[in-house]
Amino acid sequence: MDKILRINVDAEGGPKIREERLGEYAGLAGRALTTAVICKEVPPTCHPLGPENKLVFAPGMLCATTAGSSGRISVGCKSPLTGGIKESNAGGTGGQYMARLGYAAIIIEGQRRGDDLYKVVIKASGVTVEKCNELAMLSNYPCVAKLREEYGEGPGFVTIGTAGEMRMCNSTICFTDPEGRATRHAGRGGVGAVMGSKGIKAIVLDPADTPVMRKARNAEAFKDACKRFAKGITSHPVTGQGLPAYGTNVLVNILNEAGGLPTHNFKEGRFAGAEKICAETMVEIQKKRGGNPTHGCHRGCIMKCSGICVDENGKYLSKQPEYETVWGHGANCGVDNLDDIIRMDYLEDDYGLDTIETGATLGVLMEAGVIPWGDSKACMEMIHEIGKGTPMGRILGAGTATTARCYGLERAPVVKGQAMPAYDPRAVKGVGVTYATTPMGADHTAGYAVATNILGLGGKVDPLKPQGQVELSRNLQIATAALDSTGYCIFVAFCILDQPETFQALIDTLSAFTGQEMTGDDVVALGKNILRQEREFNAAAGFTRAHDRLPMYMRREQLPPHNTTFDVSDEELDSVFNF
Amino acid sequence: MDKILRINVDAEGGPKIREERLGEYAGLAGRALTTAVICKEVPPTCHPLGPENKLVFAPGMLCATTAGSSGRISVGCKSPLTGGIKESNAGGTGGQYMARLGYAAIIIEGQRRGDDLYKVVIKASGVTVEKCNELAMLSNYPCVAKLREEYGEGPGFVTIGTAGEMRMCNSTICFTDPEGRATRHAGRGGVGAVMGSKGIKAIVLDPADTPVMRKARNAEAFKDACKRFAKGITSHPVTGQGLPAYGTNVLVNILNEAGGLPTHNFKEGRFAGAEKICAETMVEIQKKRGGNPTHGCHRGCIMKCSGICVDENGKYLSKQPEYETVWGHGANCGVDNLDDIIRMDYLEDDYGLDTIETGATLGVLMEAGVIPWGDSKACMEMIHEIGKGTPMGRILGAGTATTARCYGLERAPVVKGQAMPAYDPRAVKGVGVTYATTPMGADHTAGYAVATNILGLGGKVDPLKPQGQVELSRNLQIATAALDSTGYCIFVAFCILDQPETFQALIDTLSAFTGQEMTGDDVVALGKNILRQEREFNAAAGFTRAHDRLPMYMRREQLPPHNTTFDVSDEELDSVFNF
Repeated sequence: MDKILRINVDAEGGPKIREERLGEYAGLAGRALTTAVICKEVPPTCHPLGPENKLVFAPGMLCATTAGSSGRISVGCKSPLTGGIKESNAGGTGGQYMARLGYAAIIIEGQRRGDDLYKVVIKASGVTVEKCNELAMLSNYPCVAKLREEYGEGPGFVTIGTAGEMRMCNSTICFTDPEGRATRHAGRGGVGAVMGSKGIKAIVLDPADTPVMRKARNAEAFKDACKRFAKGITSHPVTGQGLPAYGTNVLVNILNEAGGLPTHNFKEGRFAGAEKICAETMVEIQKKRGGNPTHGCHRGCIMKCSGICVDENGKYLSKQPEYETVWGHGANCGVDNLDDIIRMDYLEDDYGLDTIETGATLGVLMEAGVIPWGDSKACMEMIHEIGKGTPMGRILGAGTATTARCYGLERAPVVKGQAMPAYDPRAVKGVGVTYATTPMGADHTAGYAVATNILGLGGKVDPLKPQGQVELSRNLQIATAALDSTGYCIFVAFCILDQPETFQALIDTLSAFTGQEMTGDDVVALGKNILRQEREFNAAAGFTRAHDRLPMYMRREQLPPHNTTFDVSDEELDSVFNF
Repeated sequence: MDKILRINVDAEGGPKIREERLGEYAGLAGRALTTAVICKEVPPTCHPLGPENKLVFAPGMLCATTAGSSGRISVGCKSPLTGGIKESNAGGTGGQYMARLGYAAIIIEGQRRGDDLYKVVIKASGVTVEKCNELAMLSNYPCVAKLREEYGEGPGFVTIGTAGEMRMCNSTICFTDPEGRATRHAGRGGVGAVMGSKGIKAIVLDPADTPVMRKARNAEAFKDACKRFAKGITSHPVTGQGLPAYGTNVLVNILNEAGGLPTHNFKEGRFAGAEKICAETMVEIQKKRGGNPTHGCHRGCIMKCSGICVDENGKYLSKQPEYETVWGHGANCGVDNLDDIIRMDYLEDDYGLDTIETGATLGVLMEAGVIPWGDSKACMEMIHEIGKGTPMGRILGAGTATTARCYGLERAPVVKGQAMPAYDPRAVKGVGVTYATTPMGADHTAGYAVATNILGLGGKVDPLKPQGQVELSRNLQIATAALDSTGYCIFVAFCILDQPETFQALIDTLSAFTGQEMTGDDVVALGKNILRQEREFNAAAGFTRAHDRLPMYMRREQLPPHNTTFDVSDEELDSVFNF
C-alpha cells in the first residue's frame, strides 16, 4: 500500500491515469492522508465543483490486516456542502480492496471535458478507464447490479447515485458491503457531488490475485496485539454486547431517556413514538421475520453493528438503519412507522443521499409547512423528488441549510452548512462543542462526547452543564482524527475509553504493523497535526470563529424536557484548539 | 428630522411603537445612520431573519430640501442574501416624506408573534399600527392600489410584495414614485425578507400638514450652493443630457462596444442583440407610442433618468427599466425582445424582486439547461413561479448563488452571495475590484469605477489592465459611502468627478444646510468611517479576505472579445481598505 493512483479527467478522449509512489505522503493513511493531500494540492478558495478541487480516497493504515474492525476508508475533498475541508468515512469493501490492490490513495483531479461518464477498473493486472454512459442516472442498487453482471461478484464497487451525478450538496459515495449491497456510504459533506463533477460514475476494485491480508513488519507482535485488542472489544458491554445485538439504534431509548433526542426539528428532546422505532422493537420484529441484526459492514469486524432488515415476507428492505437514520426520519419528523423509516434508508442508499442530512432537511420542510409532521409517505415522496431532481428535489438535495434558506426559516439545525445529527446540543453539550468547532461542520463522529456525557464511558461529564465540555470535545476530536487514519472503526472508542489495556493493544497493533514504535503521545500528536492542517485549510477558505458557533436560536430557545439552552461560552468554544 | 421611530414587533396584541430623540446618532443620516445602528444594535452572528436583526430606514441628510436630486433613502439590516451588513438605497417618495414627517430613522426590531400582518401609518398627527391581513400575498401594485383607496393619493407607500412576505433572499422593499407607482425599490440584499420576517407589510407615510421643504441653517448660502450645484449637473453631458434623454440604459451600446456587457451568464462580453435592446431603440419606440423617457423618480430631481414605458396601445407597461435590468434579462439571458424585458421589469417590481439578482439568476438557470437561452416567455413564467412561491420559485427567489448551488454549477457570478451587475469584471477591472471588496457583496453602486474605466470621467484608467484599479475603487467606495448619507443620488458623481466646482457646491450645500462647515476632507473622513464600521461588522459576522474575491473561474476563463481574465492580484485586493 505504497502507491498513489492519479486520475486526471482533464484530457482529450477521457481521463488519464498515472501511478506514483507515496513520496512526501509516505507514512500517512486514511484521514491523515486525505487531509494532507487536500491541504497541499487544493486551493482553499476554489469552488468545490470546479477543476481545482480534488477527490481523494485513502484506506486506513491497517486496512486488509487481521486487526479487528480496521477496514474503514476515508474520502477527502473541499466539501460542496460546507465549503470547508471534508473527510467522510465509510465501511464496506472499499478500504480493504484498495489496500489489497496496493493503493494508499486514489486522487481524482482536473476539469471534466464533455458530458461522458467514466468508470475506473482497478485489477491486480492494471488499471483501465472506460466510458460508461449506460450507467447514467442509475441509482446505486441497479448500478451495482449492472456492474456485477459485467465484473462478477468478486470486486467491491464504489459508485455515485443520481444525487451525485446531479452534483447535489447532499450526495454520498457508496461502497458495497461484503455481499455486494449498496449500503455503506461516505455520507457527509456532499462528496458524491465532487465525484459527479469529475464525471466518474464508478470505481471497480477487483481484489482477485491479491493477498487477502497485508503483512505486518513484526508479524508475531502484531498477532499478539490484535488478539489483545479483539479481546478487549468483545469483552466490553457496548462493543461486545450492545452493538452486536442491537446496532447503533440502541441509542433511541437512551437518548430519549436523556431528553436529548431531537424531535420535530429540534423543538423537543423527547419523542412520544420512541418505543415504536427503538432498536429493541426493531430487533424483535426482524428476528420474527428472519432479518439479521448482527452483520459486519466489512470483513473482520468484531462488533458487527450493521444488520439486514426484511419485510413481512422476508424480502430485503434495507440494511439495518443506523440510530442517526432512525432519528432523522423518525423523531425529527414525528414519524413512528419503523418499516417506512427502513424504506427511506433504502431509498437514500439507492439515490446516494446522506441519511442525516436528509432527515434534518425533511424536518425543516415540515417546519416550513410543506408536508405534515409525521407523514412518512410524504417523506418518501420527497426523497423520490430528490432522486429525480425535480425543483423540489433540487432544494432538498442541496441540504438542510439551503432548504431553510429557500423557505425563509431561521431554525436550521446546521453548523458550517452541515446538519446536526441525532443529539440535541442543548441536552448533550459536549457534542454541541464538537458540532460547533470541528472543521467538518456539525458532525457527531468528529468527537463523540455522547460517550462520556450520556453513556458514562471514559469518565463523567454532566451533559446539561457547560463545565468540562470543551476539554472533553478537544480530547475526543484529537483522538478521533488519529483513529480515522488507522482504519479502525470509531466505535472501538467505546471500549478504549474504558479499558487502558485495550488502548495500549491498539497502539501496539500500529507499532507492530508499521515496525515503528508508537506511544499514546504519538497518537495524540498525529491527531493534533491533522486538526491543525484542517483548521488552516478552513481559515484560508474563509472560516473564522464566527463559524465555530451553533445557530443563535439554540442559545435562545429552551429544549424540553430539561429546558436548557446551549450555554458554553464563545470564549470557551474558541479555546478548543488551544493545543 | 431628529426623531427615531422604533417599532418593536415582539409584543402581545401587535407591534408597539416608541419615539426617541436621535441621541448618540445625532448628525447622522442615510447610510451613515443605518450602518451605525446595525453595527451598534445587531449582533453580527445573528440570523438575518431572526429576532436579533433590525431593519432601519433612514432618509439622506438633504431629503426634502431644495437641493437637486437629493431625495434618496437608505435601508439597512444584516442581509439575508449575503449574511453581511447591507445598505440598500432607493428613490421614490420614501426619503422625502419621512424627512418631512421629522423622522431620521424608523427601526423595526424584535421577534414577530403569530402570523398577522401589520401596517404602520405615520401622519403629522401621530403613528398607528394596525392589522392588515387583507393585504396578505398581494403584490406591490395591487397592494398600493388598496392602500391608496384607503389613504388617498397623498401618502407615499412603503411595501413588500409576495417575495418579501415569503422571506426570499431576493426580495425588495418598494417605495412609490411621486405618482404612486410601485417602481422604486431598495433592491439589493433581500431587505424585503427582513421586513417580511417582522410581519410588517406596509408603511404609510402621509406628508399632509408637514412643511414641503425643510429649512437650512444658513438659508441664503444653501440657496446659492444649490443653484451652483444644479447648474453643474445640468451642464454636464452625462447628467444634463445623456441620462435625461435616454436613462441609464444608454449604457447598453457603450458597454457592448467596450466588450464588457456580460452575455449568456458572463460567457462573453458582447451581445449580438444589443441594438434591439439599447436605449436609443427603446426611446425611439416609446416616443412613438407616447411613453415618457424623462421622468424623475423623486420630486426635485434634475437628472430625471427614470421614465415611463407603454405598449403599442399606450397602456402602461412599466417604468423605463434601468440599464442593469435590460442587461440582466437581455444580454445575460440572450433575450432581445425589449417589450418582454420591460414586462419582466414590471413583474419584478410587482412581486418585489431585485432585477439584477433575478436577471443573473435566470442566466444561471439557462446555463443549467432548465430553460432555453433567449426565451423571454420562459423567463416570465419563471418570475411568476417566484412570485407564487412554487418549489422552482423558492429556488430562484433565494438568489443566484443558491440557484447555482441547487443545480450543482460552478459558474455563479456572485461575490459574498450577491449577484454581479451588468459589467463584466474581466473587461471593467475597476468595478471588479469594487465587486470583490465592498462590504455589500457584488455591487456596482458601491464604487462605480465604470465611470472612469469606460466613460472616461475623473481621469483615465485602462479597464483591461490591473494597474490603478485598486486606487480607483478605493476612492470611489469612500466617496460613495459618504454620498449615500447625503440623500444625493449617486449619479451626481458623474458630474462631480469632472467638475471640481460642482463638487465644491455639493459640499457647500451640506455646510449651509447643517450650519457646520464641511470640507472635502470631512466627506472623505465620513466615507472612511462608514466603510470601517461595515468592514468590522462583516469581520465579526465571519467574513475574511477569502470573501473579498471574485469566483475563481473569472481568473481562469477568458472573456471574449478581449480574452482577458480578472488579474488584479489578491495582495492588491487586500490593500483596498488600507486607509
